[in-house]
Amino acid sequence: MTEPRGPVDSSRVPRFAGPATFARLPRLDEVAGADVAVVGVPFDGGVSYRPGARFGPAAVREASRLLRPYHPGLDVSPFATQQVADAGDIAVNPFDIGEAIETIQDAAGSLQAEGTRLVTIGGDHTIALPLLRAAARRHGPVAVLHFDAHLDTWDTYFGAEHTHGTPFRRAVEEGIVDTSALSHVGTRGPLYGKQDLTEDEKLGFGIVTSADVYRRGADEVADQLRQRIGDRPLYISIDIDCLDPAHAPGTGTPRRAA
Amino acid sequence: MTEPRGPVDSSRVPRFAGPATFARLPRLDEVAGADVAVVGVPFDGGVSYRPGARFGPAAVREASRLLRPYHPGLDVSPFATQQVADAGDIAVNPFDIGEAIETIQDAAGSLQAEGTRLVTIGGDHTIALPLLRAAARRHGPVAVLHFDAHLDTWDTYFGAEHTHGTPFRRAVEEGIVDTSALSHVGTRGPLYGKQDLTEDEKLGFGIVTSADVYRRGADEVADQLRQRIGDRPLYISIDIDCLDPAHAPGTGTPRRAA
Amino acid sequence: MTEPRGPVDSSRVPRFAGPATFARLPRLDEVAGADVAVVGVPFDGGVSYRPGARFGPAAVREASRLLRPYHPGLDVSPFATQQVADAGDIAVNPFDIGEAIETIQDAAGSLQAEGTRLVTIGGDHTIALPLLRAAARRHGPVAVLHFDAHLDTWDTYFGAEHTHGTPFRRAVEEGIVDTSALSHVGTRGPLYGKQDLTEDEKLGFGIVTSADVYRRGADEVADQLRQRIGDRPLYISIDIDCLDPAHAPGTGTPRRAA
Amino acid sequence: MTEPRGPVDSSRVPRFAGPATFARLPRLDEVAGADVAVVGVPFDGGVSYRPGARFGPAAVREASRLLRPYHPGLDVSPFATQQVADAGDIAVNPFDIGEAIETIQDAAGSLQAEGTRLVTIGGDHTIALPLLRAAARRHGPVAVLHFDAHLDTWDTYFGAEHTHGTPFRRAVEEGIVDTSALSHVGTRGPLYGKQDLTEDEKLGFGIVTSADVYRRGADEVADQLRQRIGDRPLYISIDIDCLDPAHAPGTGTPRRAA
Amino acid sequence: MTEPRGPVDSSRVPRFAGPATFARLPRLDEVAGADVAVVGVPFDGGVSYRPGARFGPAAVREASRLLRPYHPGLDVSPFATQQVADAGDIAVNPFDIGEAIETIQDAAGSLQAEGTRLVTIGGDHTIALPLLRAAARRHGPVAVLHFDAHLDTWDTYFGAEHTHGTPFRRAVEEGIVDTSALSHVGTRGPLYGKQDLTEDEKLGFGIVTSADVYRRGADEVADQLRQRIGDRPLYISIDIDCLDPAHAPGTGTPRRAA
Amino acid sequence: MTEPRGPVDSSRVPRFAGPATFARLPRLDEVAGADVAVVGVPFDGGVSYRPGARFGPAAVREASRLLRPYHPGLDVSPFATQQVADAGDIAVNPFDIGEAIETIQDAAGSLQAEGTRLVTIGGDHTIALPLLRAAARRHGPVAVLHFDAHLDTWDTYFGAEHTHGTPFRRAVEEGIVDTSALSHVGTRGPLYGKQDLTEDEKLGFGIVTSADVYRRGADEVADQLRQRIGDRPLYISIDIDCLDPAHAPGTGTPRRAA
Repeated sequence: MTEPRGPVDSSRVPRFAGPATFARLPRLDEVAGADVAVVGVPFDGGVSYRPGARFGPAAVREASRLLRPYHPGLDVSPFATQQVADAGDIAVNPFDIGEAIETIQDAAGSLQAEGTRLVTIGGDHTIALPLLRAAARRHGPVAVLHFDAHLDTWDTYFGAEHTHGTPFRRAVEEGIVDTSALSHVGTRGPLYGKQDLTEDEKLGFGIVTSADVYRRGADEVADQLRQRIGDRPLYISIDIDCLDPAHAPGTGTPRRAA
Repeated sequence: MTEPRGPVDSSRVPRFAGPATFARLPRLDEVAGADVAVVGVPFDGGVSYRPGARFGPAAVREASRLLRPYHPGLDVSPFATQQVADAGDIAVNPFDIGEAIETIQDAAGSLQAEGTRLVTIGGDHTIALPLLRAAARRHGPVAVLHFDAHLDTWDTYFGAEHTHGTPFRRAVEEGIVDTSALSHVGTRGPLYGKQDLTEDEKLGFGIVTSADVYRRGADEVADQLRQRIGDRPLYISIDIDCLDPAHAPGTGTPRRAA
Repeated sequence: MTEPRGPVDSSRVPRFAGPATFARLPRLDEVAGADVAVVGVPFDGGVSYRPGARFGPAAVREASRLLRPYHPGLDVSPFATQQVADAGDIAVNPFDIGEAIETIQDAAGSLQAEGTRLVTIGGDHTIALPLLRAAARRHGPVAVLHFDAHLDTWDTYFGAEHTHGTPFRRAVEEGIVDTSALSHVGTRGPLYGKQDLTEDEKLGFGIVTSADVYRRGADEVADQLRQRIGDRPLYISIDIDCLDPAHAPGTGTPRRAA
Repeated sequence: MTEPRGPVDSSRVPRFAGPATFARLPRLDEVAGADVAVVGVPFDGGVSYRPGARFGPAAVREASRLLRPYHPGLDVSPFATQQVADAGDIAVNPFDIGEAIETIQDAAGSLQAEGTRLVTIGGDHTIALPLLRAAARRHGPVAVLHFDAHLDTWDTYFGAEHTHGTPFRRAVEEGIVDTSALSHVGTRGPLYGKQDLTEDEKLGFGIVTSADVYRRGADEVADQLRQRIGDRPLYISIDIDCLDPAHAPGTGTPRRAA
Repeated sequence: MTEPRGPVDSSRVPRFAGPATFARLPRLDEVAGADVAVVGVPFDGGVSYRPGARFGPAAVREASRLLRPYHPGLDVSPFATQQVADAGDIAVNPFDIGEAIETIQDAAGSLQAEGTRLVTIGGDHTIALPLLRAAARRHGPVAVLHFDAHLDTWDTYFGAEHTHGTPFRRAVEEGIVDTSALSHVGTRGPLYGKQDLTEDEKLGFGIVTSADVYRRGADEVADQLRQRIGDRPLYISIDIDCLDPAHAPGTGTPRRAA
Repeated sequence: MTEPRGPVDSSRVPRFAGPATFARLPRLDEVAGADVAVVGVPFDGGVSYRPGARFGPAAVREASRLLRPYHPGLDVSPFATQQVADAGDIAVNPFDIGEAIETIQDAAGSLQAEGTRLVTIGGDHTIALPLLRAAARRHGPVAVLHFDAHLDTWDTYFGAEHTHGTPFRRAVEEGIVDTSALSHVGTRGPLYGKQDLTEDEKLGFGIVTSADVYRRGADEVADQLRQRIGDRPLYISIDIDCLDPAHAPGTGTPRRAA
């Protein structure tokens, strides 16, 4: 196996120069094949409050200019041990949720066809359903580790089945997730009512709230989740609002500048 | 006829206090009837680039706290000679353009049923079509005076018939506008190709570009438009990007804070 | 008793649509009576540094569009068990602190006359004094639980008795608070001198600093405060700067955009 | 006469370095005397809508770091032909409009006592009255050239005589301005009613609206104003909102960041 | 000649999706050759006040997502009649002005070697000198049409010969510009002294100030400039501050957010 | 000894008024001598990503208007027990890193010559080297307590020896630091590779990561550091990014406003 092609050398090409691929990694078409492809899904047609996540993939790539390749805490260099490449964005119809879901499902399936793993950058959480479908087609029902302030297992809004608040309920209904290992982590904030929790539990989810993480510590929580998941194929989904708004201020209500 | 109820007195209740109805006028349910109703249409599901206009009605109402009731240039006090009231927002499905269009059309029709004229606050330009339908049902085909940087007479995007770029083409196709008096005012910026202009002309539109207004002066342009429109029933639509971005900086590309 | 009227249903009327009453609850004039009234006090004439809190009530109401009605941690639905309604803003003179204090005191008294409890949204801390007066008139001297980075028991600035830094000293002097149960929680940052602390203690206040909360934990601190307060009538005041500026970035020095 | 001491040399001390005196000029205490003193009046207790002008003097000084000393259009170097110096800020009580007015009047009088002319940086327009008093004490009733979107000749708000909307009416009533040469320039936007204009005219003001300036051109307007003013002692007041908000975006309604 | 490859089709791939090449055009390595190459020069080491232009090329490319390919005023489709491609950024050393200038000169020369014309996106105006050198090497001394608020013909700052304020003086000294056709357009604002103008004139520059453009009109000014330039090889340089800060608010002093 | 002159009295001169010396303390030239001088070093020519720290000293001084003089946690009044004064900024050449370093070294040496201790406000971390040289000249090799997300012991970027990422390696090489007591505190985030850590260790540094501080607590970490440092002369350097970006949002990638 040839050595993976890593990020552009920042001591020769300044971080602010050159195209903003993820982490300044090569494009997928520049390498013979990739172990991991990073792909953007710029779609926010499923949000019930504040849109804008369609600009997410471009913004994450711009921010990733600052990523260095070695993680000292874990002592790993992920871009050195496998080929990671930027696969660009999936061109999703912004006007039709149904068509968007199909396009995402097909594109994710094609990328995975050769054994490439996906890291996707959304986009609103509507996109989790087609990504789960693609995963299940390849791996069978998958465990889910879902970091989010919210449950995203609501049923419908305005009669719509597919929105940013419903993908994990749909996934359970479609049988594409492994209901013995479904976890929300980081939930916080108010709900519509107690039935939100009871229905979520019936779907098979376990909940680790933000307060749980704070009280029990990240290490203990991580151990428990690892035990629950075991060696099942796993889909991880991170909604940035699992972080407190101090750390991700773009979420929530638009703020006044003054 | 009783005297219209005007805005809250700002020398007794500060402008920053109290609910943000449009211009601090009464709500529609607080008056016996209204000559003019201001109604919000918080929908942006039809935009091809930057969403956010769903927050437009609330933002315009907040900004309207500073409106005083007398226009010295025209020597008119519009809230004193007729009852203007705030009718709130139309509750539009954000996930389904087709249903949104129907909801808007029905709500606008109901408000107009008693002879009330509408001032609507969008929302993206997708909403012009159902508003034109409601107007045409009451008045027959209407003249259109369309202030906008763009033509909004494109055909489809991603196969979608109803978006913020297509309402006036659809309106011509449906026969709900008076093709002898259709005008765009304030167009500027690049197009896809020359056929954008020739197709627009075939639909019946005349164009007064921003450059025309600058060169010929607003008075001369206004005179010409008045002659063209005559005493036809008239639908006026103002896309805020008919102003230069210096005056409406929220339009266009998201800006970096730094 | 009839069932309380709760917030607008967000699966039928989008959260970004309709008037911004607190939590999308009914207005006070829309219900027969309220157990709790939410009322704005848009006054910032008492601040010694950065004004702007006059826009606070409108901003909090806009932000409250995202509030859902059920708190999973406490397992309560506060809007379901009692009628909560939005009473609008008190129209306060922005130019005269003395008159402002009287207006607030009268308005709060009127709202409480029928047994309604108040949740007020400021405004700067000058407003605590008239609110305490109204509370004491109804309940006698009240315990105070005061969350704030600062003590707000200074004496005068520029010879002014009534500012955002002085309400709790005035309240002690007037005998309207129960000096056996006065607590500051969350103090942090520098003071003018040690005498700030000794004078505050003489007034009867106990202090739980931010550092205390961090070291001892919120649960232990809350238990201690509950014991101190017992079943006394209680006035709770939350200055948003009891949170770290990361969580409430509008406080403190104006920041540069770039 | 010694040569005036000018700004710090920007080719030796970068513009972003060193204290932000106005235009990087010396402080008043660093020179033997000044022909012109620039003095800040950080007071915004008289505003009826958006406060914040108390930060105006500091912000203007920071912005003035970029000022170069020669005006090519007029071929003048104002800092070379006279000593201009920064006199710092007048320490104004933010809690009491009446006391603030007295403090400003006294401080302006002291600075002018030795023949020094003043350039003041506000602060809200309440400060014009004490500055006019100081000017009249020295020069007798002065002509007024008032650049502003608004008239600032209202009578009272909330019963208050002294606010940002009333200084020029008070000045006429006090006989400290020369009613044969009072001019507003740049008015635009709506008023409360026609009586605003008729009362303003009775006070002796002439109005050149923004539209007038646009139509007739700045040169013609300036000529007319010069003729009206002649060689009278003149007080010039510039409210930054005489500029369109595109050029001074901080005025008006607070904007949303997103 | 094959037909040029134009921008990505925005009715199939949303404008917010995919890599931000200039105007969504192909990369230079995707086409056989280019008539025009757009190249970024992310360097701001020569600025005397506010840095940040190193982020200019990436920001301009992001903003160019909205560019459509047809200019209705001029009736041209520049991307259809010639191959325009994005050549990426020149990797410039941010720590050494001298080395930066050499790198830019070499890279520009290489790109031009095959007859490709350059459109460069800066970067601060220091970069004009190496670009002029590259142009002169190919075309001989070139005419200069320089749109800018400033002259950029100063001599040195802090003894430094090469900064954003000096490139055009250096270019005259090096004999790489045609002194019979050097023009500044859009100058405005103050200078250090009258000698700035007289020295600039001695170097051979003519000046069309912003005020001139406003008074005489863009058409007349353009005609005059065309006559002066004739058919000389021409270097055009646009400093964005030739626009009023209302239209390019990032220039000048950092603004406060509140 | 005379009593130190402290900050301006904020109950007589509002905090937003008057010049922005650090903490509103006197200027160095206003006092007979100072125990501690606060001096700005507005230089950012050594940054590899986002410049702007040249505005740091002015911004920190503006923010310091809110500092009160007594620290209740430590029970100290630092401005009362010693004379602290603002020495202004060092005028550093923004175009030449080498000259900048010399200027800083000389200016710091002069200020220290009379026994005055320095508190410097940067500026990027390039300035640590000349400040360490000045410290070593007076005290011999100094212990270093370095709060930072990064190590700043890299070797070169683009061949440049002196940048914001290299001062502490240079300091070890020059023998001006005491290698028995060098500590980084607060490191977090990715590195280029494991060799970053091994080389740093060879230079003599110990590392307390952000995660260490979180797990072990600030008190324990502080005790350990105090023991390591003992009574050595100590240089403390705080890079603001040792705080999480939630607390210092200006660091890192420029953010989009929307």
